[in-house]
This record gives sequence, structure tokens and C-alpha cells, in this order.
Amino acid sequence: MRLVVTGAAGFLGQRLISAILARGSLTNAAGVVTPVTRILAFDKMEAHAFGDSRVLPVTGDIADPGAVACLIDQDTDSVFHLAAVVSGEAERNFDLGLTINVDATRAIMERMRHAAPGAKLMTTSSVAVFGGAMPATVPDSYVWKPQSSYGTQKAINDLLLSDYSRRGYIDGLSLRMPTIVVRPGKPNAAASSFASGIIREPLNGDMAICPVSPKTVLWIMSPEQAILNLLHGHELPRALLGSDRVINMPGLSVTVTEMLQALRSVGGDAAADRVRMEPDPAIEAIVNSWPGNFSAERAHSLGFTHDADMRSIIVAFMRHMGLH
Amino acid sequence: MRLVVTGAAGFLGQRLISAILARGSLTNAAGVVTPVTRILAFDKMEAHAFGDSRVLPVTGDIADPGAVACLIDQDTDSVFHLAAVVSGEAERNFDLGLTINVDATRAIMERMRHAAPGAKLMTTSSVAVFGGAMPATVPDSYVWKPQSSYGTQKAINDLLLSDYSRRGYIDGLSLRMPTIVVRPGKPNAAASSFASGIIREPLNGDMAICPVSPKTVLWIMSPEQAILNLLHGHELPRALLGSDRVINMPGLSVTVTEMLQALRSVGGDAAADRVRMEPDPAIEAIVNSWPGNFSAERAHSLGFTHDADMRSIIVAFMRHMGLH
Repeated sequence: MRLVVTGAAGFLGQRLISAILARGSLTNAAGVVTPVTRILAFDKMEAHAFGDSRVLPVTGDIADPGAVACLIDQDTDSVFHLAAVVSGEAERNFDLGLTINVDATRAIMERMRHAAPGAKLMTTSSVAVFGGAMPATVPDSYVWKPQSSYGTQKAINDLLLSDYSRRGYIDGLSLRMPTIVVRPGKPNAAASSFASGIIREPLNGDMAICPVSPKTVLWIMSPEQAILNLLHGHELPRALLGSDRVINMPGLSVTVTEMLQALRSVGGDAAADRVRMEPDPAIEAIVNSWPGNFSAERAHSLGFTHDADMRSIIVAFMRHMGLH
Repeated sequence: MRLVVTGAAGFLGQRLISAILARGSLTNAAGVVTPVTRILAFDKMEAHAFGDSRVLPVTGDIADPGAVACLIDQDTDSVFHLAAVVSGEAERNFDLGLTINVDATRAIMERMRHAAPGAKLMTTSSVAVFGGAMPATVPDSYVWKPQSSYGTQKAINDLLLSDYSRRGYIDGLSLRMPTIVVRPGKPNAAASSFASGIIREPLNGDMAICPVSPKTVLWIMSPEQAILNLLHGHELPRALLGSDRVINMPGLSVTVTEMLQALRSVGGDAAADRVRMEPDPAIEAIVNSWPGNFSAERAHSLGFTHDADMRSIIVAFMRHMGLH
């Protein structure tokens, strides 16, 4: 089994590769569980190779069709496409967002269609495709009204992936992910960056700024859970999926207040007191356009899973970072 | 006021230009009713100039960015973008569909953004963006699940138009049109072509084939009504539109049986007996994926209108064709 992972140097890419190496085998297009012999770990910076000869880091620009052509050939069984421009950056730089989030994704599908027809494409979408007036719990049948360029671009990918799959050009599946909490590393340009920052920074002894109201409701998933669901989606028998290749993932619906209470409970007062509330209208506008709860009926029926509670997300983060 | 009409040689483009000439003035970006001084009538074949010096037919390839650049400049007030590859053709020729229906539309928006920022863009979407399990009457909040490449491409345009408008690059509005009945002229490659054919051909004394079950429910609008709604949308005060720039149009929900009964009532037995039922599974699959009824609440609240009944649609067609 030969895999391609884009965004391989990102925190999800690294965890995905690590999880695949540990697992050793995945289900191929014929439905047969097959040893993974090669993972092309593509990113603009060199991805971690985990000291494992199956992992080949490849650096390049995902917007370069030549790079995509080198990456995917007739031996490619599955592509995990995680490379993306995050929401805040896509809002600031419209052209870059379209180039990376739409054109590069389309180029990957085009290349798969011609070089590896029918290969699996796993990718992630976002709750940012939703917006406007919404019920408190958003059903699977709810319309997409993105209020950001990032959400627009993810919705376009979802449409293209569905059509390429319906036509048999690729075997695509897009998991519409909640906000991923707790991301490791530094704050990034995602409008949702604070959702990890208000947990991560205080646990590391640093101050964090919360730019949204404590009443803000977020739909979240831990990185561990996101990887479990990506692999679950990859392994699912295609007969169960039918033609609908975009699935709202299950998640946890939590308020910022509940997140901070869990932080206080797990990390103590010293950690919780390192969060300063400083509302930022630009970030609040984007974050409040995302729904805080979903029914995710189809995902549940297909066996996708969610985190137990906010406390367990924080404990898992501390364990991962060696803080616990 | 300087306008651009793409697809200007098509039956909707011709009627639109004729209606604009008769009206003489339209509302500009500043909300002021202003005389129309120039209509660039763009199509791959030469559009009708109506013997009117305000109409300048321009021929070219809408997929050529150079042509688009010539068409739209800082003096452009409004673009009516009607050029498209129809559903059957987009299903057969995936690359052509993407090139014309997505890439050319995006190139128009890009050109407007840079050469005529904030100018109005009126375009049409399609009920083909819907599909899968649906309620009998589809609400405005219902998810898009296109089951055809045409529907996918129209949905992508709707997303891009909304984002370009939200960012202030253009002032876009996409009207999600029912199936247009009765189209004049010859059958085309649209999967919905029969819906006009079963009325038009019998009235012209020719045989027509109906490739779907008589129970098939269609959501339809006459060409006259479509033009009225395009102009209504163009004239609407933008404060009423807000950020949601894609509107499900009102229509008539009719069965094929009801259409044929109206044909018999208006055109007589001789006409009605010229329709032969010959189911075509490929066409039925596409047509049955489109909903037969919509609530169209937002359209109603904004003053968009629908045809009175099937009979009046047929009468108007006969009048237009000089058959009545």
C-alpha cells in the first residue's frame, strides 16, 4: 500500500503518519487489508520521517502541478490531503486561499483521475461551511452558507470531491471536522486559534488571550479523535458510503466557560488564571458564524466517534506534551 | 449605464436584451435609475442586435480570459452572465463543463473585482444543485447535494459569487431557476430538454418523445417569468439582499401528466397525441434527482414571482411564436 500525506509536517499530518506506522496496514481499493510499504510525506517544510524507512519526506509547493504530478502515480493507493491555508489567513489573503485550498485540491483530484483512477482521497472539511441563521443543533440536511473565504473554499472542495467520486475518477471522502482542540505548537492564523491557545498556553505557564465571549459555543474534537476518524473513514467499506462523500463529524459542544472550568479542574487555578478575556470583534464575527452543535446522525450511524468530555481532551493533551 | 450580457445569442439572452431595450433604464450601483446606453451582447455566435445602436454584438470564447478582459472594464455597471454548458453536455464532457461553468465564471468575477469593483453580477443557478433524499417541498435551508456535474458546477459558482460579494469585490446575485419551459428552438443537450420538447414540438406539428414517467414532478418557470425575475433581482435595493446572494426562485410544481393535459386543453387532441412516452433511464436518473417543489420563502418575501399556471405558459409560448 502506497500512501501520500499532504500537510505532512503539520500536527495532524505527523500524528496521522505516526498512527499509520503503528497500525502497519490499511484497506486498499479492493477492500483488502494490506501492509503499508511507503508514505510520501509532502509539505513545504521537511516532514518528520519517524526514523522509519517507510516514510519518505518530500518537500515542495502543493500549488505546483509538477510537484503534485511527482507525488501521485499509478502506484498510489490513497492520498490523505491535509495541506490547507487556515481560516484567518484565507480571509486576509483571498488569492492564496483560492490557490491552495481550491486550485491545489482540484489539481490533486485531476492528477488522481488520470494517474491513479479510483484511488482513495481522504480530506477534511470544516464547520466554517455553515453560517447565517441556524437551528441550535444543525442537522445533516442543513444548507451551507459560508461567511468566510475559508468556509467557501472548503465547501467548493466538498462539491468537487463528491462529483469526482460520483464519476468514479477518485474514491473520495471528506470529513467535516469540528474545531480541533488542543492543537500543539504556537498560535496560528486560524480564527479558531484561541480555542487551543486558552488551554495550551496556560498549561505551559504562559498567558493566553481569549478573543470571544465566555458564552461562545464551540463544536470541538481532539487531534487524537480526528486521526481515529480519518482512519475509520479510510477503512469503511465503500458500499456503506454510497454517493454522499461529505460527512459532518460528531464532536463535543462546549462553551468557552466550560473549557475554562475544565482547565481549572485539570490544570489548577494557576493555569486558569493565565487566561485574559479580550474580545476581538473580527474573530468573534467569524467564530460566531460557525454552529456550536450538530446532530451528525450519518456519522454516528457509520461509526465515527467523538471525545468523551473536555477534561479528557485536556488530559490527553498534557500526556502528549509530557506535561502529565 | 453600460451592461454586458453573456450567452446573449441564447433564448434567455435575447429576451433579456429585448426587455432591457424596452425598459430603457436600470438601477445603477448607486441606486439611481439610469438610461441604458450600451449593451455588449457576448456569445460564441453573433447575437441579435435588434436594430438598436445601444446593442453591440461581440463574438468570442467565454473561456478566453482575454475576451473577458475586453468585455469588462471600469465603465461596466452590470454583467448578466447567462453563458453556460447545459446539464447533459456537462455530464458527458466533464472538462468542458468545468472550463465554461466554473473557470469562465470565476474569470468574470476576477475581472470585475479588478476592473469594475462593486459592479452588479446577475447570474442563474439551477435546482440541479439539489439531490438525494429530500422533503416533498424543499425549504430554503436545505443542503445542496448535486447528483450531476452541472449541479456541482452551479453550486460552486453560487459559493464563489457569495464570497466575492461578501468581500465587496462584486455585487452578485444568483437566481436559482426552475426548469425553463417552454424554451423555443431545437432540443438541446440539457437533461430537461424534453420538458420544453413535449410542448413545443407537438404545437409545431412534430412528434416529441417524453423520456420520463408521466408522474415525474417538475419545478418550472416560463422564459418570460425568468426575465422578469432577473430584472427584478437587478433592481432590488441591496440593503434588502444582505449577504445571502443565492435565492431559490418561486416556480410552478407540475407533473408531466398535468403538462400534457394543459397541452391537450390549449393545443387540442392533435397536438397532445404527438407525444410518445419512451422512458430513458439516464435522463430519468438526472431529472428525478431534482426536487419538484420548493417553499422559496425568501424569494416570495423579496417580491420574485411565478407563472400563474401551465396553461398560461403554453398560451404565452404560442403568442411568442406567432402560433396563437
